[in-house]
Amino acid sequence: KKPIVVAEYLFRRLHEIGIRSVHGLPGDFNLVALDYIPKAGLKWVGSVNELNAAYAADGYARTKGISAVVTTFGVGELSAINGIAGAFSEHVPVVHIVGCPSTISQRNGMLLHHTLGNGDFNVFANMSSQISCNMARLKDPADIPDQIDLALRECWIRSRPVYIMLPTDMAEKKVEGARLDTPIDLTEPANETEREDYVVDVVLKYLHAAKQPVILVDACAIRHKVLNEVHDLVEKTQLPVFVTPMGKGAINEDHPSYGGVYAGTGSLPAVAQRVETSDLVLSIGALKSDFNTAGFSYRTSRLNTIDFHSDHCTVRYSEYPRVAMRGVLRKVVERVDLSKLSRPPSPEVANEVTKNRDSSETITQAFFWPRVGEYLKENDIVVTETGTSNFGIWETKYPRGVTGVTQILWGSIGWSVGAAQGAALAAKDMGVDRRTILFVGDGSFQLTAQEVSTMMRHNLKVTIFLIYNEGFTIERYIHGMDAEYNDIIRWKYVDVPTVFGGSEKQVRKFVIKTKDELEKLLTDKEFNEAGGLQFVELWMPKEDAPRALKITAEIAAKNNAKM
Amino acid sequence: KKPIVVAEYLFRRLHEIGIRSVHGLPGDFNLVALDYIPKAGLKWVGSVNELNAAYAADGYARTKGISAVVTTFGVGELSAINGIAGAFSEHVPVVHIVGCPSTISQRNGMLLHHTLGNGDFNVFANMSSQISCNMARLKDPADIPDQIDLALRECWIRSRPVYIMLPTDMAEKKVEGARLDTPIDLTEPANETEREDYVVDVVLKYLHAAKQPVILVDACAIRHKVLNEVHDLVEKTQLPVFVTPMGKGAINEDHPSYGGVYAGTGSLPAVAQRVETSDLVLSIGALKSDFNTAGFSYRTSRLNTIDFHSDHCTVRYSEYPRVAMRGVLRKVVERVDLSKLSRPPSPEVANEVTKNRDSSETITQAFFWPRVGEYLKENDIVVTETGTSNFGIWETKYPRGVTGVTQILWGSIGWSVGAAQGAALAAKDMGVDRRTILFVGDGSFQLTAQEVSTMMRHNLKVTIFLIYNEGFTIERYIHGMDAEYNDIIRWKYVDVPTVFGGSEKQVRKFVIKTKDELEKLLTDKEFNEAGGLQFVELWMPKEDAPRALKITAEIAAKNNAKM
Ligand SMILES: Cc1ncc(C[n+]2csc(CCOP(=O)(O)OP(=O)(O)O)c2C)c(N)n1
Ligand SMILES: Cc1ncc(C[n+]2csc(CCOP(=O)(O)OP(=O)(O)O)c2C)c(N)n1
Ligand SMILES: [Mg+2]
Ligand SMILES: [Mg+2]
Repeated sequence: KKPIVVAEYLFRRLHEIGIRSVHGLPGDFNLVALDYIPKAGLKWVGSVNELNAAYAADGYARTKGISAVVTTFGVGELSAINGIAGAFSEHVPVVHIVGCPSTISQRNGMLLHHTLGNGDFNVFANMSSQISCNMARLKDPADIPDQIDLALRECWIRSRPVYIMLPTDMAEKKVEGARLDTPIDLTEPANETEREDYVVDVVLKYLHAAKQPVILVDACAIRHKVLNEVHDLVEKTQLPVFVTPMGKGAINEDHPSYGGVYAGTGSLPAVAQRVETSDLVLSIGALKSDFNTAGFSYRTSRLNTIDFHSDHCTVRYSEYPRVAMRGVLRKVVERVDLSKLSRPPSPEVANEVTKNRDSSETITQAFFWPRVGEYLKENDIVVTETGTSNFGIWETKYPRGVTGVTQILWGSIGWSVGAAQGAALAAKDMGVDRRTILFVGDGSFQLTAQEVSTMMRHNLKVTIFLIYNEGFTIERYIHGMDAEYNDIIRWKYVDVPTVFGGSEKQVRKFVIKTKDELEKLLTDKEFNEAGGLQFVELWMPKEDAPRALKITAEIAAKNNAKM
Repeated sequence: KKPIVVAEYLFRRLHEIGIRSVHGLPGDFNLVALDYIPKAGLKWVGSVNELNAAYAADGYARTKGISAVVTTFGVGELSAINGIAGAFSEHVPVVHIVGCPSTISQRNGMLLHHTLGNGDFNVFANMSSQISCNMARLKDPADIPDQIDLALRECWIRSRPVYIMLPTDMAEKKVEGARLDTPIDLTEPANETEREDYVVDVVLKYLHAAKQPVILVDACAIRHKVLNEVHDLVEKTQLPVFVTPMGKGAINEDHPSYGGVYAGTGSLPAVAQRVETSDLVLSIGALKSDFNTAGFSYRTSRLNTIDFHSDHCTVRYSEYPRVAMRGVLRKVVERVDLSKLSRPPSPEVANEVTKNRDSSETITQAFFWPRVGEYLKENDIVVTETGTSNFGIWETKYPRGVTGVTQILWGSIGWSVGAAQGAALAAKDMGVDRRTILFVGDGSFQLTAQEVSTMMRHNLKVTIFLIYNEGFTIERYIHGMDAEYNDIIRWKYVDVPTVFGGSEKQVRKFVIKTKDELEKLLTDKEFNEAGGLQFVELWMPKEDAPRALKITAEIAAKNNAKM
């Protein structure tokens, strides 16, 4: 009744589910589809390369809830695949749309550019199927709207990438547009009531009986969007609440119940003490990877743990498949009997600036991260990178409303530069005035530096702290402290933004070598206002690393060497 | 008898087969192995990111015969996969070594960084198996030397990437070093004699009978290393010889028999005429992809064609599987009866500078490429990129000994910057003083610009012509002449090298806007000596494209639009 072409259908659906900017690069197999992006009210980002585009889409989704990236067959999609794999690994919903050769060319096995020359047009999609929770290979207009709607729903609900293969001859095929009058249903299927109630009863039984219950919030609580439930739980129970490194930012760190970052032996002593002597850890959305647990160093027991996950719960050794945490948490909040609840005190959390200030002028890792905590403002978006910053940030106490963006499980360096661009763009698309602050190592920055160009293309407000420590310090701590392969060549980092298209007016540059200079910068009014792109080259010692990194690196090295 | 650790065994084998520099990035799963690189007499390149490393390895292999790249599990290898896929597609032998978690961690399904969090340690190797001609998943020291030797042999002989998965706990396991006293056998298996002789007879029958025989040399003649045979054939028969775009550089273009570039309707009229009226095309190593044939526009007939391939030959419609071209060509050279050979004249080939010079000061595509032909010197390495340069270069007549490096089938933009680095490094490793000259579009350059940093790290002699035409001109010709998605933001291109670590002394920069300026530059003595890195920002009109590109783009657009 209301015919509409496939590309427009797809992009209007993206708009409906909250996407406003589409990352990616053109290629001759997606050009015609791209014409429909502005028609659907979307903005084309015009990324500098596909890996960066995927990283940026990841950052955008972490900030705005979901994102999309468009690439071209073979060359484009494979350039992006590492970024998409990261999104899969870390439960980030990214819609990957690949413009591919026409179904006719495919059927005829034509020897086209961007193919392996073997007539196989499925090989790249097959690779992506390993890192996508849904594959929509569009071939027949009769199926296409269903395929698109299902893919987008899966992406949202399962919080993982989906892959949409759009052949050139399908992009402008007509489908029924009246379907667009009914939005895609993005609600999670409810748990079976009896089953859910059963789990809630069990949880409450243990919770009411516990003497020292604590809450531990991890990555999947953020990714699977149950933070409202978690916040209500904390508010109502006032139980001590901790975050893991991947959960950092999930909890208002100004809240009296907030007790800090728990990561086994990587935790501060008071935190380890409180969590490890607890007789009931309500563990929400756990993702216990090596770097998220300081090398699997938890000293908590299954017998004292209740695990809440997006698709199941576990109470001690009892497993409850098909019971999603959202419903359970909601009912626990409603039904908890506060009169039966013991509430141990939370450790105090503060930015330990004075304690960590030595008398030298050097900006040490120990000093820097607590100091950053004092500089941060409400609602900042803080992006950190694999390297010293990912571990240093454990020592930073966030103001309320800060979004922490890190990639601790996948850990692909260079990711943070793209992710910061995507996060800042998401904030802009949401019409909110938030600062995006990126902490990135000099080594990591080199992999994806040109993403600064995209930041300037869209006038994004990003403040970049580049940790200039002459190479791969994190790797030095794992193996090869003085090895040549851990050295990099020195760039003129502060000039990068202007070379990549920024005007002198658009960019502010700083080289900061001493604590004094740092102090002046962090208290400068204009710097704090962060009106545009700001680039800080921050000198830190080559062989200095945050406390938690030293611990984790040692365990990683041992694990690698085990024979 | 002579115990040696696995990593050293592997790297010494790489050295033996001709590799001198190893591309790649460190990661904690490969650090220990990297310690053995200098011990084996190899140089570590220290690439800026893995995709660039793979592109560079591709360029290195095209120049030196084979190459290697080391990445780390998951994040590193997937970043490189598009580059490796290109090498697979284009028959380039690259050894991809991936440092991965220990066999113990794998067996225990540990939740390690750089995994998908699902305990599956094979998923990335499975992806790579699609683009590798051999997979060596090292697990047991008893098998490892065999696996390595086989992988390297396959890589060389089949001229395609191989994948070696090296777990951290295998890197230093002891294996028998005495094996190294016997080099890996890299000789191609000989054809069955009777079968080969039969084919040679058939070929000679047609060749002696033909009135207008010609030779057409394509990509696989270069990749499968039969150029000696081809040159001998040309020398002995003096038959007119043509190259395809992917075969450009295979033939000495100063040779009187050389007739130019054949690509169907993309050919110059005299070339099309000679090839298409020929009654016998000896087609060597054909790879008839769309962009290599100006959109499948050959007007030659199978009935007039003999095809020579690395694993079979075809005479008209008769197929001869398992008859590799090398042996056949060698015998054809030996047995051809010159008295029975008709030799039609070859079209004349010249750099048509004057004919294409208009009266304006603008540097047009039509003018530039023949002019480049006059600037090139013997033994230059010429790298071109998908975009105007890949098509413009058809109009450039190469001096003898020039190596042409292009990626016309895979066509991943940004590749050329990495490939130029790899090619220049290969030349340096070979101890020869060759210029490497890169022609790259402004759009393509942005994807991989930081590879310039690696050029400076190794003091490579590369002259970069950056075609500044405000975006994706090739795409404009396919679809969206004025579309926003074909625009890019303008960088300060000439400042890129110094920002990426070059000193003002190390780099020479030029902005060239007019024919006069170009003339002055191309005749400047110092510029011609090309002592270090030279960067030329070359202004060309946004909506100008080489003749052959216009033809090919139109056909591609039609093909994509076919419903
Ligand atoms: C794509 C990718 N390649 C390689 C690695 C291995 N790796 C992890 S951290 C790191 C070094 C990071 O150095 P830098 O950003 O300078 O951090 P810092 O010096 O602050 O530790 C490397 C090479 C990786 N994680 N991802
Ligand atoms: C990795 C990758 N992404 C996208 C494309 C699609 N593509 C092919 S050519 C091209 C534009 C190249 O522009 P430029 O380098 O400026 O060349 P020119 O303007 O000289 O044509 C693009 C985007 C591709 N081939 N490879
Ligand atoms: Mg560093
Ligand atoms: Mg261009």
